[in-house]
Order: sequence, then C-alpha cells, then structure tokens
Amino acid sequence: MGVIRSVLWKSLNCHQVYGANTNVGKTIISTAICGSLRRKFPDSKIWYLKPVSTGPLTEADDCHVGNFVSDIQADCLYQFDEPVSPHIAAKQSTGNVPSDSELLQSIWSKLSQYADDAPGWALVETAGGVHSPGPSGTSQADLFRPIRLPTILVGDSNLGGISSSISAFESLHARGYDTNLVILFANDRYKNHEYLIEYFSKREVTALSIPAPPEWQPDGGDRQRMTEYYDKLSETGAMEQALGILKTKHEDRIENLASMASRASSVIWYPFSQHTSISAATITTIDSAYGDHFQTLTSTPENSRDPLLNATFDGSASWWTQGLGHGNVELSQAASYAAGRFGHVMFAGAVHEPALTLAESLLANMQNSRLSRVFYSDNGSTGIEVAIKMALRASAVRNGWDVSVKDLEVIGLKGSYHGDTIGAMDCSEPSVYNEKVGWYSGRGYWFEYPTVRMVDGSWIVEIPEALKQELGSSSQYASVSEIFNLSGRQSEPLGQRYRTYIKKVITNLVKDDKRKFGALILEPVVLGAGGMILIDPLFQKLLVDVVRESRDIFGSGGRSHTPTDWTGLPVIFDEVFTGLYRLGRFSSASFIGVEPDISVHAKLLTGGLIPLCATLASGSIFESFLSPEKSDALLHGHSYTAHAVGCTVAQASINSMLVMERNHVWDDFKAEWQDSKGPEIWSMWSREFVEKLSYDPTIEGVIGLGSVLAITLKDSAGSGYTSSISQDLQSRLARGKYREWNIHSRVLGNVIYLMSSLTSTKQNLREIEEFVESCISKAL
Amino acid sequence: MGVIRSVLWKSLNCHQVYGANTNVGKTIISTAICGSLRRKFPDSKIWYLKPVSTGPLTEADDCHVGNFVSDIQADCLYQFDEPVSPHIAAKQSTGNVPSDSELLQSIWSKLSQYADDAPGWALVETAGGVHSPGPSGTSQADLFRPIRLPTILVGDSNLGGISSSISAFESLHARGYDTNLVILFANDRYKNHEYLIEYFSKREVTALSIPAPPEWQPDGGDRQRMTEYYDKLSETGAMEQALGILKTKHEDRIENLASMASRASSVIWYPFSQHTSISAATITTIDSAYGDHFQTLTSTPENSRDPLLNATFDGSASWWTQGLGHGNVELSQAASYAAGRFGHVMFAGAVHEPALTLAESLLANMQNSRLSRVFYSDNGSTGIEVAIKMALRASAVRNGWDVSVKDLEVIGLKGSYHGDTIGAMDCSEPSVYNEKVGWYSGRGYWFEYPTVRMVDGSWIVEIPEALKQELGSSSQYASVSEIFNLSGRQSEPLGQRYRTYIKKVITNLVKDDKRKFGALILEPVVLGAGGMILIDPLFQKLLVDVVRESRDIFGSGGRSHTPTDWTGLPVIFDEVFTGLYRLGRFSSASFIGVEPDISVHAKLLTGGLIPLCATLASGSIFESFLSPEKSDALLHGHSYTAHAVGCTVAQASINSMLVMERNHVWDDFKAEWQDSKGPEIWSMWSREFVEKLSYDPTIEGVIGLGSVLAITLKDSAGSGYTSSISQDLQSRLARGKYREWNIHSRVLGNVIYLMSSLTSTKQNLREIEEFVESCISKAL
Repeated sequence: MGVIRSVLWKSLNCHQVYGANTNVGKTIISTAICGSLRRKFPDSKIWYLKPVSTGPLTEADDCHVGNFVSDIQADCLYQFDEPVSPHIAAKQSTGNVPSDSELLQSIWSKLSQYADDAPGWALVETAGGVHSPGPSGTSQADLFRPIRLPTILVGDSNLGGISSSISAFESLHARGYDTNLVILFANDRYKNHEYLIEYFSKREVTALSIPAPPEWQPDGGDRQRMTEYYDKLSETGAMEQALGILKTKHEDRIENLASMASRASSVIWYPFSQHTSISAATITTIDSAYGDHFQTLTSTPENSRDPLLNATFDGSASWWTQGLGHGNVELSQAASYAAGRFGHVMFAGAVHEPALTLAESLLANMQNSRLSRVFYSDNGSTGIEVAIKMALRASAVRNGWDVSVKDLEVIGLKGSYHGDTIGAMDCSEPSVYNEKVGWYSGRGYWFEYPTVRMVDGSWIVEIPEALKQELGSSSQYASVSEIFNLSGRQSEPLGQRYRTYIKKVITNLVKDDKRKFGALILEPVVLGAGGMILIDPLFQKLLVDVVRESRDIFGSGGRSHTPTDWTGLPVIFDEVFTGLYRLGRFSSASFIGVEPDISVHAKLLTGGLIPLCATLASGSIFESFLSPEKSDALLHGHSYTAHAVGCTVAQASINSMLVMERNHVWDDFKAEWQDSKGPEIWSMWSREFVEKLSYDPTIEGVIGLGSVLAITLKDSAGSGYTSSISQDLQSRLARGKYREWNIHSRVLGNVIYLMSSLTSTKQNLREIEEFVESCISKAL
Repeated sequence: MGVIRSVLWKSLNCHQVYGANTNVGKTIISTAICGSLRRKFPDSKIWYLKPVSTGPLTEADDCHVGNFVSDIQADCLYQFDEPVSPHIAAKQSTGNVPSDSELLQSIWSKLSQYADDAPGWALVETAGGVHSPGPSGTSQADLFRPIRLPTILVGDSNLGGISSSISAFESLHARGYDTNLVILFANDRYKNHEYLIEYFSKREVTALSIPAPPEWQPDGGDRQRMTEYYDKLSETGAMEQALGILKTKHEDRIENLASMASRASSVIWYPFSQHTSISAATITTIDSAYGDHFQTLTSTPENSRDPLLNATFDGSASWWTQGLGHGNVELSQAASYAAGRFGHVMFAGAVHEPALTLAESLLANMQNSRLSRVFYSDNGSTGIEVAIKMALRASAVRNGWDVSVKDLEVIGLKGSYHGDTIGAMDCSEPSVYNEKVGWYSGRGYWFEYPTVRMVDGSWIVEIPEALKQELGSSSQYASVSEIFNLSGRQSEPLGQRYRTYIKKVITNLVKDDKRKFGALILEPVVLGAGGMILIDPLFQKLLVDVVRESRDIFGSGGRSHTPTDWTGLPVIFDEVFTGLYRLGRFSSASFIGVEPDISVHAKLLTGGLIPLCATLASGSIFESFLSPEKSDALLHGHSYTAHAVGCTVAQASINSMLVMERNHVWDDFKAEWQDSKGPEIWSMWSREFVEKLSYDPTIEGVIGLGSVLAITLKDSAGSGYTSSISQDLQSRLARGKYREWNIHSRVLGNVIYLMSSLTSTKQNLREIEEFVESCISKAL
C-alpha cells in the first residue's frame, strides 16, 4: 500500500551516511567504516548500499567500497550516467526513474534481504548533501525520512565547513533523525574538526576526526596509497571509537524500546484508562511517526531477523487532532521559527504577529457575520470554559440576574461532551464519564434528537423511541446530501414538528419549571465522544432558530437587537472536534447554516502538533463585559495564552488546509459523493465502502463524513460506552495485514471509528477499507 | 547594560547578507545590490558594513564594494590579517578581539550613525556561511540574532549548493530570522537556481538568480570586466526585482508593526483585561524577543531617524513562564526535533520516549519518596483539576463516601489561586477574581496565615491582626535563612502555637461543623496571583504535619498506613508558579521539608516556550482508582496529553536547569545571600538592593527569593487587587532609561513584582535594580 515501515532489525546494524556537503568524503569515510568493521568483526556480514548513484559506473561509490573492502556486498539501486544531481540526471535519463515511494520500497526490500542474511552491518550512502534532491526532486532528508535510519553525518573539513556541517545537522535534527555520529577529516589549517568536536559534544553527539586521505597523484600509485590509508585508518582509536558508538547506539536503542512499555506501566498515569487493564503488554511503544502512521514496536518478533517496527495507521487521528500528517516539516518549521523569534511572550496587553494574524484569519475564514473577537486558551476544554463564562455572563447581564447566580443552566444535547475540566463537564448530562467525578454537577437540560446513519444502503433519519409520538417515525433519504438540504427540508412537515416540539419543551422549562438558562451549547453536526453520532442537521438548525426567536421566553433585556446581536440565548458551537475540515469544511456550523455567537476551535487548529484553542465571540457577547470595573472583565487567562509557537503553527495549518481546498486536492474524494439533491457533503472514505458496510448484518449503521468513518456494531447486550462488542474487531485491526501494517483504533462502546488526516492518500484509505471489510467479515 | 535593541529605523533600509556557504559570492552580490541602489536611487545614502573581515586589507570586501560603487560608505569594524575563520584569526591576533556583546554594540552604534544620516540603505555582510564562527567562536547566526536584521541569503550555485542553500535557510529560519530574499548566480550545469527558485516560492520567499561574474583572468583586465558586469547587472530585471523586494519588505514590516496595536484592539479579546481601558495606545507591540527582553515598537518616535524598537525587560517573565530566555535555540531545536520525529502521537495506551523520559526525570529529581506516577495535561489549571479529581476520589474511597458527594471541600490558604477553569477556581475563596464568574462556588475553608517580608532591614514574620490573640505578635529575624530553619523553629513556642491553632481549627470544622474535606491544597512558600506573598514556611509545614497526623479527625479508612501513604487528607502542592527553580530550587516543597502526595508543575516546566503540565501523584492516591470498572478510572485526558513537542522541550529545559545548578552558574548570586543560620536561601536580586528597598519610606515590605522580587507599596487607601498605587511606578519603569531600554512589569494591586529568568546576567539585573531604585525615589 505504499506504507513504509521505519527500518530496524536487531541483527542488522544499519546507518545512513549523510554528507554536510558534496565532496566531503562520504564514500571514503563509508569505506573506512566498512573496512574497519571487516577487520574488527571478521565473521560479520557487511553491506553497503548506494540507493542512487550518478556518474560513470566505473567511478561509482559502490565500486570504490568494493575495491577496498574485502568480502563486502556493495549494491546500487539506481544508477544514472550523468555526473550531476540525481534530479537532473533522472530528467535526462531514458531509463527507469523511481518515485519516492518506489525508491523507499526498494531500499526497504534490499535491507530486508540483508536482514534475512544477518547478523551484520549495513551502510546506506546518500548522494551529495542532506538536502540534495533525489531522482524525483524531493530533498533526500525529506525523501528518506519515512525509514528514519539513524545517521552518520560526514562533516565538512573545507573552508566554511563548520557552517555547512552545523546547518546540515540542524536540517536532519529538525526532521527527527537521530545523528549517532559526526565524522570528518582533520584539517590543520581550518581546524573545523576541533570546533565541531566541541560544538557537538555540547549537544550530546560525538564528533570524531580522522586523517585526510592522501592526495591523488598522477603516478598510478593511487590505489596502493589508498589501501595503505585505509589499513592504517582501521587501526586508529578514532575508528575504534566510531564503531563502538555505532554498536552501542544500535543496541541501546533496541534495549530502550524493549523496556519502554514496562517502564511506562510503572510511572505513567494514563488518561481515560483503567490501569487494572493496562500492563506492559497492552502498551503500544511508538518509536516515531510519519504521515498517517505511527512506527510501533512489533510486539511479537519471532526471531532477531524480523523487523522490529511496524507501520500502524493512526486510526483515531491521535485523538482527532491529526490533520496534516505526523512529522510534517512545514509545521515543524513554523514551530521552530516562532520559538526562535519569540519563545513565548506574555499576551495580556501586548500583541505579536502570530496571534494577530491567526485571529484575523480565523475571523475572516469562519464566514460568520457575528464573530468579531478571539480569545485564546490552551485546549478545547479550557476554550469551552471560556465560552461558558462568556455566555452565562452575557445572559445574566441582559436579564439583570446576579452574575454569580448558581442555578444558571445550559441547554444542550444528550450525550454531548465538551471537555474534562469541571466547568466543561458541567455542560454535559450525567453519564459514565462523570458519575464518579467529585465536584461535577450537570447543569442543564439536554434534548433528545433524531440521528442520521446509513442502513442497508439508505440514509435514515431515525427518531428515537421517546420522541416518536411527537415527531413521527423515521424516514429514508437517497443520499446524505438530501438530508443536508435544510432549506428544502425545513418547510416539510417534519421540520414543522421539530419546531413545535422544541418550542414546547423550552416553554415548559422556562415558563412552567422556572429554570434559568444562560446558553445553548451544541457540537454541530456530529457528537464526538458521545459516540460519533450524526445528528439530524435540521433538528440542530431549528433548535438554534427556535431559541433565537424565543425572546418572549428567554427575555430580551427590554431592547431591540441588531441582526448580529444574540437573542434568546447565546449560542455556543463546540467545533473543537468537528471544525477546521474534520468534516470537510472550514467551519462545521456552515453545514447547518447557523452563525453561532460563540464558537470554539482546537484540535485541528494546529494541524495535529501542539495544544492551542481559540474561542471566537460576537461583539454582542463581548460588550457584556465592558464596564469601568476591572472585576466585570473576563478574568480568565492562561500563562501561555496565545503562545507564539502555537499561533504560528496554527496559521501554517490553516493556510495549508485552505490551499488544499483551493487547489482542489480533495476533488477526487468529493466526486464519488456528488449528489444533485443537496449541498456538497463528502467523505474521504469511499461511498461504495460506506454503502457496502451498511448492508453488513453485523452492523447497525454507518456514517462517512469528511475524514470520519463511524461504524455502529449490533450489540444484543445493549449499546453504549460500556459495550465491548467492538473490541474483537479492534484487535483484528491491531493485528494487521501480513504483519506489514496494522491499524490503531479507538472505540466508543459499540462504535468503532476511523479517522484519516486531510493529507491521507486515496490509495492508502482504499487499502484500509479493504482490510477493514475483511476483518469485519472474519470477526463477527 | 549590554542590552541590545533589534535594528529598525524607518529611514534606514538595512539588511544582513548571509551566505549559504563560503565563496558563494556574498561580496559580489552585495556590491551588485549597492551598485543597483546607487543607480536607482541616486540621491540616497548607501552604506556597506563588514563587521568582521579576515585576510589582507587590500583584498577586503569593503574595499571591493568601495571600488565598484560610487559614493558609498564602506566600513569594517574588526579586521584580522589571517585569511581564516574569524575565530581562528582572533586567536592568532594580538589586536583587539571583541566579545559578542561588544561586536553587537559596535554594529548597533555604526548603524545608528548611518541612521542619523539617513534616509538610506545599508547592507551588513557576514563572513563565510551562516554558522561560521565569529571572533568569539559563537556561530554568526546565533551571534547576530539579538539585532535580528532581515536577511538576504546568497545561495550556493556550485555542485551541492541546493543542499547547502536550503540548510542555511533552515538554520536562519529556526532562529527567527526573516529571510527577505534568496539570490544566487545562475549556473546552467547544476541548475541550482531553477530548483531553489521553485523551492523557495513554495515557502513564500522570493529567490532570484543573476548571471555569474566573469572568470578572473591573468590579463589585468579584471577590474574593467567587473565594472562592465556590475553595470550590466544593475539593468537586469532581476536586480530591479531584488531592490523592489527589499524596499517593500521593509516598508510593509513597519506598516504592519504600526497597525498591529490598533488591529489587535479590534479583534483580540484579552485575558484578564477590562477592555474599556484597552486601546491601541495601551497595547505593546512585540516584534520579537531575545534573552530577557522583548523587542517592542517604540510608541513615540520623534522622527523617522529614531529607532523603532526598544529592548523591554520582560519583568513578569511572561507571566512567570520564562526561565531560559526568549529565542532559546536549544529549546527551539528540541521542539523541532520532536515535531519532526513524532508530530503529536496519541497517548492513551501508548508510550513514546519524550513522555517517558520526562516522567522518569521528574520523579527522580523531585526527591519525594511518595510520588510515583505522572499524569500529563496542558496547563496549571488543568493540572490542578486533575489533582483535585485525584484527591477527592482518594478521600471519598477511603471514607466510603459516595464519590459524587457534592459537599466535599478543600482546605487551603486565603488568597491562594490555582487557575481559571471552574474546578481550579472552586479551590479558592471568593474574591474579585471569581465574584462575577457563573458556576464558580468556593468549596473550602481557607486559613489565614503569618507572612514574611523584609522591613527596615529585618525579616519579619508578621502575624495577621485576626490571629494575634492565638499566635502572639510578629517577630524579627536577622536573615531569611533563619526563617527557613524549620527544624530549629518548630520546637520554639511559636511553632507550638501554630500547631495548637491549626489543630483547633480543623477539629472545629470537622467535628463541630461536620464539614467534609477531600484535600489540603497549598501553593508552597509563595502565593503568586494572591500578591506574591511569602508565607511563613513553618506555618505551611505544620499545617501539613497536623493534617497528616489528624487521622482521628479525618478518618483513616480503618487501616494502618505505610510511610508513603497519604493520611489525614491528600496533600496537593501547586508548584505551578513556585517550582522548577523559580524560587531557586528544583522543587519548592523542599523549602518546607514536606513531601506532598500530589504535586503540580507547569510554567517553567517547558522553560517558557509552550504549554505543558505534569501532575505527579503517589501510589497511594493512584490505587484509589484501580478497580475492574472502567468508570472508576480517572476519566480525564486532553487531546494533546503528553504531546511529544512539549515533553521534549520540557526535558531539554529541565536538563538545562539541572546542568546550570551542577555547574554552579548561580553561585555568584548565592554568595551574597549566604548565611550560616539556616539553609541556603538566595535570590538573583541582590541582598543589598532588597535591604535598601526595605528602608524606603514608601515601601511596606519587600521580598527577594530565587528569581522573584516583590515590592509592597504603602497604600493609605487600603491595599489589595484593586489598589492602583503601583501604577505610577509601573509607568516610570515602562518609560525606561535613556529611551534605550525599559521594563515591562505586571502589578497585583499595591504589589509590584519583577522576575528574572534563570539565565539573566548579574550585570543586567544590577542595572535594573539601579533603575528601579531611581524610579522609586522619583515616583513616590
């Protein structure tokens, strides 16, 4: 499937040789290392691999290594005759030019062959400098990143080489490579080695220098002199030390990986986890991650020649945060730029470019005429607390209530979830999540609602049993787009019944029960933690509409309102999960055609890299806090409010996503879901696959929307968060396909969901679909 | 004071020229730019500055520029004859070798002279590549960072130059430099320019190529050919475009900076701020930050020749987070490495190296025999919520209370503050911070307590009026160390009175008033937001001791306990502000010789870069959550729990701080505070200064502890959060000294505090002290 596992075998000590520049002696140093290995470990196998070589075959690096090291296998995968950069040679070549993924696959296969023949050592030598382009034009540091081989950096001993060596190291470091060794020729004039040895020792990287090779002379004695050079070199303490480091680093890494799960089980207190069911055996050890995949430690290598790492599809998109791929260089560079320019600078009373630009960009792209202010916090839960403080105060001020009134409540939806801090928890009804939490008290009224899912090839709006008398029975639609055709649907009888029902409930609550409400809070479109439930968008829209129209019920503060003022109740949309393209659109509010007064954004906001949250509010909410009194202000703030790194990464993420949309990157996915009967509703999961699942006898229903796929399994023992029916399927996904890749997933009771990032490829997702299908048919 | 302002004048368009490598044509391209400027802007002044030059004077770059550009002032600040890297030339030189700060001051002064003579243009040319060392050995990219000139990167057109150009760019980018232009010679063989132009355009950086200069020939016609080359070059569209970019970038930057405060005032909702007192005029615009200083937009430039940026001491340490300096490269690289290796990977049921290493390191260094588990969250407030959930549940389980019992309370201290989410707020007594917050309800009993401060040269333990009858009157000590000599003091009569009083209060609360308590929560040593109050450490220690001994009062669950089990109540230490060297020690609990059962760490945890929090807990707390039921688990977690970037940065920060302590970096500060009568208690603020302030008639008292200086001003109108007495002093500090630097400070009512980072230099702090003193004498 084009999924690449990072390289790690116990019995194959494998390093990649990068050069600080071209012509710094990569091949000579590789030869020296191989020669020293040959001498020190006479029984070991030694391999040298040059993935891409340019220039005449006779001068090729693999030939050089083969000439001077006995009993070594030297291979080259792709050879171009022209002695220029591989990307130019490839353009001029008439032969086979590999794509990045083909090249990686070839390297992986070759190393895999070596490993089958192990124990031994392998060096993989790159061409030119770290960022010299490969055949496709991708920089090697980026190109080879998926296999994340530990590296040997050959430093530059020429004039200017201090700079090129350090910069090359930084480029590798920023891509998450581990540089195990820096090695370079001694040069007594420029003394780069002296400087670099000290420089790297401060960074806990060993740098070593070795004597430079003899200069080429036209007397024909070159080969003899080089042989002597290599012979002498292999006896030096420096080469001895180099081999020792390569050996130790390899062994330590494997030992460390092997011990991590057990150490974690004794020092980590895991989130949302019952530790009685956690042990070293249940903990996944993640070595690194790239794109859609974790690189995880294989739990059951049969022997030392089995690969130790597996590519594991990050099926929960790392708790719904992942959007632009793990190890995304653009985001990483955004982070380091902001860290370098600002660090974190305190935000109260100050402004910096990243916070301002992000605020302006969020407001502009949300396309909500109400929103005009951005308040920053650290995560969805704190952002919800901010939203609640905003809404409750606005309501209290308008209604003349004591602002600290304790019985103020929210209106919400059953099963909704807004975060783990107490204030955010209080927005949700009592449930298994909060029943044993001290200080939790649900403060609200939570509506039941009709849901949507695909069953037997049809999209069904399901009316829950308790509401059937009021709302009638469930109805079928030919497409999901049709269900989102709200302007059409709202005048139909069902829409009228929704209205009437909602109006009746709120009238009862306020007029009869004398309850006081300060906010309407909704997760638009899909409830996340509540079970990946697609709510009938018409119901959500009308809930907002009716609340806003009900000034008579909720009070209007005795004044008239402009079109952007809040009326009825302040409407909070918790878009933490659903927003920023998770469901395929910048704002999930747009699906239901509602402009909330407050909207909360986190998770994908930073593309899946670091925590940040933005709570957006309307001027009408903001004004409730204006007064001459400091104590009337929103006295909320976190130390790292609007931290520069987060805001810069967020801006880079948003730009990336907007550019992807503008460049029609998802059009191919969208095409499958096109439907003339309603607005554009699409998924990265294929329509065909979703339909097929909907017919499966073991499946109760399925939704595919944006990057989200949610499968509700039939559970005769009753569904809900405590159901365990999905665990068997989860295990099958975790066991994986052909031991080459597997799927990490999270379940919510009898619901199993998968989430892609926004950069997932169609090919990968289709292969995953195929595998999921095969697991379902086997599992159930 | 060695404080460097970043360079920005409206009338001086100034760029720094960096090379992707040595010998890439920096000087030729600088000459070409200057020559083209001369032609295009015949009336403009043009300056060329070579801060450090090596090699014979006659071949010097400034001579070359002077030779080919008419009417230009070309200067060199430091010239070394030997044609090697400046750091080697400097070692061999007998002449004046500048320190980094001297070199920066010289550049600043020189540019300042140019600016006085502006309008005009200036180029500052570096030597070698971006990381080539300056005279002191510091890499130029690091050395010149404080002035943060916008850069022109001269790309490398030689073989391998794609790689060196990209890596050089990345090294600059990661230090927060803005690269306005990449420019290189066209080379039709290697075509680096074609690749780089495309590469950089994707990163929104313009790259341009220009024809290479004629090759040197021994016919003596070189000068003529170069003249023709430059003449022709200046007419090319590329040079025209280059000048246009330099002009536009400079103007846009200034325009952007000038507009930011006003734009912010209309879109940002500021934390902890009453917006009626916020306008564009009150908002500080931060262009960048380095070390202890923000670089802020000068509010009142008198004319276009005044510098636009001011160095502003970050006196609140960016809300107490800053520890290792803004723009810290080590932290920035830690962040980018983790971003490159992992991105963020979900943590439930998984482990990755940064989270594990950090957990182990925190547990090892806290030196608390009770703590054995680490729970990660995003900030101090969420970490406190976690701590509270832990403690309340542990208490409920032991006492057999319904875990969702609503009337469970905490014992704390008056004026303490633990964060802004509702659960954290509920731990604090009602106050101006929370009185208008919906859903807040203080759930606890908060002790009054004796405080410590220096008055008239003596350290006083002050007993509040209400407690005098019980505890006696205030007492004086010769040194602060004496006050922290707890083993000595606890057997004195005052210690006995503390004990008796505390026991009496808790007996009343539990036995008489039948209140139920689930936690004792304290900010150890100093209350932060409560007003930078130093609490008598003996009182805090005995409060914990008495609570722990009072199993008869709080219940023991009918079982005996091991020495590391919690007894009485779970003790939570909120070390968010006070921990991790803020007060001079790794753990602030160590000051009072208490091992808490739960301890919360944030702010300095990441050295002042990005949000992360760790809540540490004992096994005895952890066990309360073990059961076969998932619902008994701590069902708390944030999306970015244990995010790899945060954990990696935290580990780097902790290592840095530990190394600083091990290397005796603070010994010089400590020496001043040495005292034989008690443990080592020290401050980065000088003892002499603190003493001097304590005698000031306008000052009620003062404390200096670790990096914290807190001055309580006398306020005849009564003190507290709403006092405004300190604002006059705050304004004087903000106006600054000689318009060269100023101080940004935060006040808490009548308390004004300053906080250094842990890397602040003695010289800087002493100059600040002098300035503060002068402001106090003027202000009050």
